[in-house]
Amino acid sequence: MANCIFCRIVQGEIPCAKIMEDEHCLSFLDIGPINAGHALVIPKKHYPTLFEVPDEDLAACATMARAVGKAVLKVVGAAGLNFLQNNFRAAGQLVEHAHFHLIPRHENDGFLTSWPGKAYAVGEMEKLLQKVHAQLQA
Amino acid sequence: MANCIFCRIVQGEIPCAKIMEDEHCLSFLDIGPINAGHALVIPKKHYPTLFEVPDEDLAACATMARAVGKAVLKVVGAAGLNFLQNNFRAAGQLVEHAHFHLIPRHENDGFLTSWPGKAYAVGEMEKLLQKVHAQLQA
Repeated sequence: MANCIFCRIVQGEIPCAKIMEDEHCLSFLDIGPINAGHALVIPKKHYPTLFEVPDEDLAACATMARAVGKAVLKVVGAAGLNFLQNNFRAAGQLVEHAHFHLIPRHENDGFLTSWPGKAYAVGEMEKLLQKVHAQLQA
Repeated sequence: MANCIFCRIVQGEIPCAKIMEDEHCLSFLDIGPINAGHALVIPKKHYPTLFEVPDEDLAACATMARAVGKAVLKVVGAAGLNFLQNNFRAAGQLVEHAHFHLIPRHENDGFLTSWPGKAYAVGEMEKLLQKVHAQLQA
């Protein structure tokens, strides 16, 4: 897409700190990293979210993410790594071309500090599960 | 692994709110959800982190995550969804069996509120990129 920044990076119209690429996907350093080494993996074709990425591109992105994540973790001496993909604005997606974040993590680095897990009311989880099953069969 | 809670769920020794399964992976509702519908996808075999998951299992998990994520997003009427996988304690991993979170998101729901992006110093990104390339070729 002409007005998509990630498509323009894929086309070479905008430079990037390229880590690696293959037929399906491209990885480069995020220019506004949560921590140094924060990398992205994107499918070369334009898909808005995870839900449009076909099997082959999805598998290629996940495999590349595993390799890039392992390398950046080692290079920056991180203690952990988040593999994160945000879909739609409410989930934090800013560029509407599906992308996977690889975020090296250090102890107490101030990212993802809150994990506000809740509890289901009695019977609520079972009702929800039925609806998910129905949706998957729709 | 005998003492792994996710392996015991796979074996049927501990119940779960099962969404779907195939030869490679299993999906079920997280019992301490960030938001209702929060689901997990795990490989059936025990791999501690993303870095040990082989290609075939990884592709299967990603494909299942896409399907489950789409269904839960619709069922709970979410505005967004995070696909998140945490490696090692510093990144928030609590169960040492690789697992992918599918977290339905609503506007201003209080999760992942901070995205503390930084800037690289001049020349820092290029130096880091060289090290990542060297690591990938090692």
